[in-house]
Amino acid sequence: MSSHTIPHIVVIGGGFGGLAFCRNFPKGVARITLLDRTNHHLFQPLLYQVATAGLSVPDIAQPIRAIVADRSDITVLMDEVVRIDAPGKKVVGKSEELSFDYLVIAAGARTTYFGHPEWAQHAFGLKTIDDAVQIRRHILSAIERAELTEDLAERERLMTVVVVGGGPTGVELAGAFAELFLHTLKDDFRNVDPTKGRIILIESGPRLLNMFTPELADEAARQLQELGVEVKFNNLVKDIRHGSVVLPTETLLAETVVWGAGVEGSPIGATLGVPLSRGGKIKVEPDLSLPGHPDIFAIGDIVAMVDVKGTTIPGVAPAALQMGAHVAALVERSIVQGRRAGEVREPFVYWDKGTMATIGRSRAVAMAMGLQLTGWPAWMAWLVIHLMFLVGLRNKVSVVLSWMYSWFTYDRSSRVIYGVEPPAK
Amino acid sequence: MSSHTIPHIVVIGGGFGGLAFCRNFPKGVARITLLDRTNHHLFQPLLYQVATAGLSVPDIAQPIRAIVADRSDITVLMDEVVRIDAPGKKVVGKSEELSFDYLVIAAGARTTYFGHPEWAQHAFGLKTIDDAVQIRRHILSAIERAELTEDLAERERLMTVVVVGGGPTGVELAGAFAELFLHTLKDDFRNVDPTKGRIILIESGPRLLNMFTPELADEAARQLQELGVEVKFNNLVKDIRHGSVVLPTETLLAETVVWGAGVEGSPIGATLGVPLSRGGKIKVEPDLSLPGHPDIFAIGDIVAMVDVKGTTIPGVAPAALQMGAHVAALVERSIVQGRRAGEVREPFVYWDKGTMATIGRSRAVAMAMGLQLTGWPAWMAWLVIHLMFLVGLRNKVSVVLSWMYSWFTYDRSSRVIYGVEPPAK
Repeated sequence: MSSHTIPHIVVIGGGFGGLAFCRNFPKGVARITLLDRTNHHLFQPLLYQVATAGLSVPDIAQPIRAIVADRSDITVLMDEVVRIDAPGKKVVGKSEELSFDYLVIAAGARTTYFGHPEWAQHAFGLKTIDDAVQIRRHILSAIERAELTEDLAERERLMTVVVVGGGPTGVELAGAFAELFLHTLKDDFRNVDPTKGRIILIESGPRLLNMFTPELADEAARQLQELGVEVKFNNLVKDIRHGSVVLPTETLLAETVVWGAGVEGSPIGATLGVPLSRGGKIKVEPDLSLPGHPDIFAIGDIVAMVDVKGTTIPGVAPAALQMGAHVAALVERSIVQGRRAGEVREPFVYWDKGTMATIGRSRAVAMAMGLQLTGWPAWMAWLVIHLMFLVGLRNKVSVVLSWMYSWFTYDRSSRVIYGVEPPAK
Repeated sequence: MSSHTIPHIVVIGGGFGGLAFCRNFPKGVARITLLDRTNHHLFQPLLYQVATAGLSVPDIAQPIRAIVADRSDITVLMDEVVRIDAPGKKVVGKSEELSFDYLVIAAGARTTYFGHPEWAQHAFGLKTIDDAVQIRRHILSAIERAELTEDLAERERLMTVVVVGGGPTGVELAGAFAELFLHTLKDDFRNVDPTKGRIILIESGPRLLNMFTPELADEAARQLQELGVEVKFNNLVKDIRHGSVVLPTETLLAETVVWGAGVEGSPIGATLGVPLSRGGKIKVEPDLSLPGHPDIFAIGDIVAMVDVKGTTIPGVAPAALQMGAHVAALVERSIVQGRRAGEVREPFVYWDKGTMATIGRSRAVAMAMGLQLTGWPAWMAWLVIHLMFLVGLRNKVSVVLSWMYSWFTYDRSSRVIYGVEPPAK
């Protein structure tokens, strides 16, 4: 199955970083094995739209095999990596063990509850397809139960959603929940009035969206409030229990709690024996290789780094794409030219093309090349850029149609409750 | 919330029958409560395409609330009916109890394993969205595991699918699995060759598709064999175990087993105290009312009846639609005109508009108005008619696009593995 004369590259993770590496790495130079726990590449920036019933799963996910089907040099394996033996140059998965010449770790990040893992039982994270499908099932089922009950306090609790964290995930989720309640569901019930449902966004600091200017952050808060979202600043969550969120001065009763407050590096980082950041992310060298392991690289959300220009690299898709391309060039050069003693590799420099967050129909904020946009222009820019980066023509067409349909009808296409309730929740 | 002067109609089930009743029943004559275990109307004739990754869930399911949103006289409740108190005129659900003046039972059918409920653990049924999503996850995961293993016998077992039952469900599933293996997945793997996967269709009798003419049934078998499906006639399944199916003279090793061999009436029929057929279906009067209960009707797949012209009504969507319309007219007349002693109601007569089954791309059989169609013409007729009956413009557009996309690319759009493995399986 393999030739021993050409080098073997193992890539862990089929997200933006891992796929960018594969795409930028030329055919015929090496044998690549791409490992992922799932069978799909996920377009995470639109995951909140699956959670809020606007898009369906295949709209934002594509089989990794299909994406690289024309690359006979790439073998895709669906397996979960248990640990990495860096000195022995081996990746140990649940189903097999792989030796490598070069390793690219693009395993991403996962939700963290900042020292309160028990909150995971009561507050959904939003990192995977399963997370999004569970949130969707949960919120739609809660409203069905509200329609059935005659206990008014319970009805109010069932119709309350708390979103924790005022970053892009929290802001986008809160806006999308508000539109679901205000528009999509408004005529569907006889006993409850979905437009009276409460959406509460909790932020521990004094403002939303830290990566934006204060003006744009204020504008985002104003737009959310126009949609009826209650934004609570300077509120650190004290506890999350079944059906309630405890804040410093009040307790919110809510059936649905979504946690968008933080992520940490994938746990496989801890098996490497290299220094990690406080958030469990890998501290890489300026060229993205691991300290002491010039043939092992880390890219994307699993990386904690400040580049040579002093920019702290954010955990966003463009950073992962740029890192994947950078490492592809380095590994190719290393294989083709051979490594020379004392060689200094080109450092990675992040090019910030801009930042944007959407709040709802015609509501968004964006910052790019010194410009600040709000409302319609920001929203259009958001739409176009997200479509551009969505993998696959079919997904683009399907998402455009779903969005156009929602725009004209205020309906959302993916409101079907199904699936097995996970055992622990 | 309700007036006591206008009659209350309870409808159990939001499938073809229940919705046809609601649509044909005029506004302003009564108050209707529509109960369903799920929140969606399901287009069951295309369920096998979700199971084989061709369509996504929202393509074939629509929230019942959205369908009747413009009918302020209809309240939709998501609840499971536990029993019906026919003499007391009450429906007892898990969450509430409803009194009715008229009751329409349209609760459908479920998979039955003919006295072997233990087979349900090892052989998937195909009646619900959850069934379809589980089959899809199972088959796609099996091939991923086949790609990982180096045990050749195990690889062959993982790549084998057994479909039990040569009716329309079995034939359509076997054809769709064959196309998934032959076309969609053919370039995606490096270690396994999906085109070598085995699809075996088991039929207990000497022919497929009993409702068709022998010529069309032979043609269907021939078309399946062209796709590489092994059709085994006169084979009664003796046992189904984990990973194997026992036939009279051989045992098939197969990771995926789908049961399309039979359905029985919903178990709520048994709580009525009226005679049931051998398959647990309700034996109704010629007007579709229950013996001794002129205000309670049963329609759709839960009914076992031979109409006054001697036709045994098949468990298909057109029969449910026609029954719903028939009962809507009877109930309306009864409410508007009042019931008269000795009144004889119009009997239900089934109008058979034709029968069709699809086998694959350009492969189908159809029988209508004395005509027999095969191949392209039958397939086009199948496409057009299924689209016509699919509820909702959005669903029609989405399904057409998915089909066009698959036609040109041989790809299937819904190949994402996700969801929680159900505990028992």
